[in-house]
Amino acid sequence: MMLNDPSRKYRPFVAVDLPDRQWPSRRIETPPAWCSVDLRDGNQALIDPMDLERKQRFFDMLVKIGFKEIEVGFPSASQTDFDFVRSLIEEGKVPDDVTIQVLTQARPHLIERTFESLKGAKQAIVHVYNATDPVFRKVVFNVNRAECIDIAVTATRQIRELMDAAPETDWTFQYSPELFTTTEMDFAVEIVNAVSATYGATADKRMIVNLPATVECATPNNYADQIEWFCRNVEHRDHLIVSVHPHNDRGTGVAAAELTLMAGADRVEGTLFGNGERTGNVDIVTLAMNLYTQGVHPGLDFSNITPIMREVEYCNQLPVHPRHPYVGDLVFTAFSGSHQDAIKKGMAVRKDSPDDVWAVPYLPIDPLDVGRSYEAVIRVNSQSGKGGVSYLLEQEHGIELPRRLAMEFSTVVQDVADRIGKEITSEMVYQAFVDEYLAKTSPYALVSHRLSSEPDSPTVTLEAVISKEDDRQTISAQGNGPLAAFIKALAAQGHDVEIIDYHEHSRGQGADAEAIAYVEVRVGDESVFGVGTDESITSASIKGVLSAVNRKLSTGIVAPNVTADTVV
Amino acid sequence: MMLNDPSRKYRPFVAVDLPDRQWPSRRIETPPAWCSVDLRDGNQALIDPMDLERKQRFFDMLVKIGFKEIEVGFPSASQTDFDFVRSLIEEGKVPDDVTIQVLTQARPHLIERTFESLKGAKQAIVHVYNATDPVFRKVVFNVNRAECIDIAVTATRQIRELMDAAPETDWTFQYSPELFTTTEMDFAVEIVNAVSATYGATADKRMIVNLPATVECATPNNYADQIEWFCRNVEHRDHLIVSVHPHNDRGTGVAAAELTLMAGADRVEGTLFGNGERTGNVDIVTLAMNLYTQGVHPGLDFSNITPIMREVEYCNQLPVHPRHPYVGDLVFTAFSGSHQDAIKKGMAVRKDSPDDVWAVPYLPIDPLDVGRSYEAVIRVNSQSGKGGVSYLLEQEHGIELPRRLAMEFSTVVQDVADRIGKEITSEMVYQAFVDEYLAKTSPYALVSHRLSSEPDSPTVTLEAVISKEDDRQTISAQGNGPLAAFIKALAAQGHDVEIIDYHEHSRGQGADAEAIAYVEVRVGDESVFGVGTDESITSASIKGVLSAVNRKLSTGIVAPNVTADTVV
Repeated sequence: MMLNDPSRKYRPFVAVDLPDRQWPSRRIETPPAWCSVDLRDGNQALIDPMDLERKQRFFDMLVKIGFKEIEVGFPSASQTDFDFVRSLIEEGKVPDDVTIQVLTQARPHLIERTFESLKGAKQAIVHVYNATDPVFRKVVFNVNRAECIDIAVTATRQIRELMDAAPETDWTFQYSPELFTTTEMDFAVEIVNAVSATYGATADKRMIVNLPATVECATPNNYADQIEWFCRNVEHRDHLIVSVHPHNDRGTGVAAAELTLMAGADRVEGTLFGNGERTGNVDIVTLAMNLYTQGVHPGLDFSNITPIMREVEYCNQLPVHPRHPYVGDLVFTAFSGSHQDAIKKGMAVRKDSPDDVWAVPYLPIDPLDVGRSYEAVIRVNSQSGKGGVSYLLEQEHGIELPRRLAMEFSTVVQDVADRIGKEITSEMVYQAFVDEYLAKTSPYALVSHRLSSEPDSPTVTLEAVISKEDDRQTISAQGNGPLAAFIKALAAQGHDVEIIDYHEHSRGQGADAEAIAYVEVRVGDESVFGVGTDESITSASIKGVLSAVNRKLSTGIVAPNVTADTVV
Repeated sequence: MMLNDPSRKYRPFVAVDLPDRQWPSRRIETPPAWCSVDLRDGNQALIDPMDLERKQRFFDMLVKIGFKEIEVGFPSASQTDFDFVRSLIEEGKVPDDVTIQVLTQARPHLIERTFESLKGAKQAIVHVYNATDPVFRKVVFNVNRAECIDIAVTATRQIRELMDAAPETDWTFQYSPELFTTTEMDFAVEIVNAVSATYGATADKRMIVNLPATVECATPNNYADQIEWFCRNVEHRDHLIVSVHPHNDRGTGVAAAELTLMAGADRVEGTLFGNGERTGNVDIVTLAMNLYTQGVHPGLDFSNITPIMREVEYCNQLPVHPRHPYVGDLVFTAFSGSHQDAIKKGMAVRKDSPDDVWAVPYLPIDPLDVGRSYEAVIRVNSQSGKGGVSYLLEQEHGIELPRRLAMEFSTVVQDVADRIGKEITSEMVYQAFVDEYLAKTSPYALVSHRLSSEPDSPTVTLEAVISKEDDRQTISAQGNGPLAAFIKALAAQGHDVEIIDYHEHSRGQGADAEAIAYVEVRVGDESVFGVGTDESITSASIKGVLSAVNRKLSTGIVAPNVTADTVV
């Protein structure tokens, strides 16, 4: 099927008429007010929304980064969100300089419930929205313009009253005409005028008017034109904090935020690394670091960006792409020789004059500023990281390293690379793996074993013959399985070796394929990996345990309750 | 460490002075000429660059999508690239309406070698570049402006001569002043004027002037200003095809391409899904589909986008992010109830008037146009796909499904969801897994087994007691391991069951943790999965085989050489 002719089904976006626009000649000289919507917009787009523990972790991280406004949920729509807001307030987890924000639809009982969730808050932003886009008015809500305004004004009046009834909280009011960018501009201004008059915003107590690109539907200059037009035409611009909330359906959310800031917006709602419905919200990390590279401090701290990425990946259970600006695994690497050469020369110049303006070829930012380092990668060498190494082992040798083992092994490869000082071939990676794990058969090696299970009994009996140098000895024990029994047999000899993790899989196909077992054991206070291969899955796993024990012994770091003499 | 004050280390980008810019009032009404640089710029940024087979697959796909210009490599720098160009030409793999492009540095012996690679081509673009950016001139090459121009002009003269000497090829010449966006604009114009005069470009035989944002270093409006300024100031604009080559260091590569097209560029170089050095090149898929949603046919065919994504993921060995515009796993989903409701209403309206302009809430494009469908996701339900299901099993039950099994199991969950017709809870997913795999202990179940290996012997002996309904029987065989022996014991009973894949891992911690084994077996012509758990790793894997056999029997689809009566 060829892509259809789209000219009947889709129409070009209708631009605002603004030939004398001023934004293209401006630049962003101060950071906007940032509002994180990770815990609401981001969270509601997750396959597995965050529980209280993950929400709290994320909130604490946002505070640490420096966010002063954090939308924490939609408490009238979700019990988890309600409970989270209550726990933040009741357990005093919101710093004095941070304001929590909650979203509500413009419906009386939801607004009521929203204020219940906020009882006792020191300060809070109540964020109400209704749909103003003509398709929504007609198809979803069946209201005309006047009725649409009435919904917004009625909600605003209720909110104003509930705020006045709870003066112990320092309230801020926020209104969003939903799908601002596809709303008729004159109507957007009309409804915002009505809402702000009802609320009674002043220059001293401004309200936030959030103008979302709920769905991104045009090149980003159009959003900027709309913001500039809105700011020129709305009443009492100085009573308003104009906020944007870009989405990324056309891959231009970051640009849209930047151009709208040039066009007069004061505030940006977004998420870390751009999580959110569909293609996501605008990525505040990229926006902040883009400012930073222009000499403007963003007021957010991403000086150690990798742990932030890991935490977000944990909380969202979504990956950050390896090419994500400023943070992806590959963004501070150079694979091509000419790039590496130019960077090397630029770095050398910089070393001589470290106080100059940053000007190293191919690096838009000093990686150190985000806690990273520049990595010259010649195919697989010391800097190619666990991705490349794991990939090679899997593709060429059928070895699927568990993640933690992959991390441990990457340091082994790093050592080899540092020793050799040049490109490491795929074969050298494999050899390093063999040397480090599979060839660790000294002092202890498996000679043979017998295993038996009895009907209706949960235990098996293992008898293993093990060699230490030239001596052979037989050890045996019962356990729930061969590994458990083997560990017990070791324990009977005076060793506490505990299995933390175990993975095993076949290499190659057919019944005669080899098995490879990865075993992580704890010996004393430390954990160590071992790997075994054998045509028997049982032997492979026992060999894995012995590989771990042998590696532990060969490092010379023997935990207090285990000595070389007493192991087996 | 707080993020440092950047005001001394970084400077704001110096904008072109162009107060009367015209581009912000324009829109893109026709598609640009597209040039894919996946096989060169994209390829050189891969951890594992493509081999000839992957390059050929990628090339064939690009042709099928509709690319007419494809940069296929850097033949003077890479033997693989040289060989690839030769095989394309010698084996006649380039369609008549497609032009291959190759990159070369402006150095005599590399240009010579480049032409060797192109011998016999029907048509080709020779793309030469040199660095014009002031940091590069000073730090990397130590040349002044005149010397820099001389490098470009000398190379152009040599290329012109080599082209004239091989008139059987229809040649196009392309020049890139590298890091155009950080080159002084007057110098960029000066060097391009010199090159085009030397080459002798005409309105009938235009040369391509490619103006790369090799590193993205400013908001995207700046690149547009530069392109408009360049087009106004360069000599003989009509002798030139002006091309842009945006990178994505600030996350605004797509916007930069769009604004530069509005500013007068004719052509875009980019890659599928934005692969490329560091943060990548501009993503041509997003650019093309952005045009499509404005009623402009891009001239590229992404009507079945998922297989294209999979092929690119295979060739690049890099993932496409789940939120990538138009293609990511999550971009046509809606998790929130209010979004789902609005979409449902919009879809209903559309059903009644299918010829109207597309106007469904929250969906910027009809998913069908790219071969996808809209998916309403309420946490985990029938549409949440294998990602959600696998994630739940792993997080809540410690079950790490191998990929192919995950795909098989997602259809099981789909069936359950379709039967129930509502949200599926995490517990229901787990129960479906238990029912489908673990509880398949009929007709055959493992009662007990004995295993023994002998010193210095590669084989083990397995004796297994198996029940069929109420009957018990003992089977035994030797093999390289317990699974191999068990399969042989089955074979001795007249069955050909072959193991295709096997994964096993621990659940929970400690020596007494349970093992779970996933076994894919081939019975006759079909493959089927089985899963077994046990405290013994050996028992778990044998149970996995029996689970597969039982599942096979329960479907009633029994392969020719296996019948219910003869299995075990």
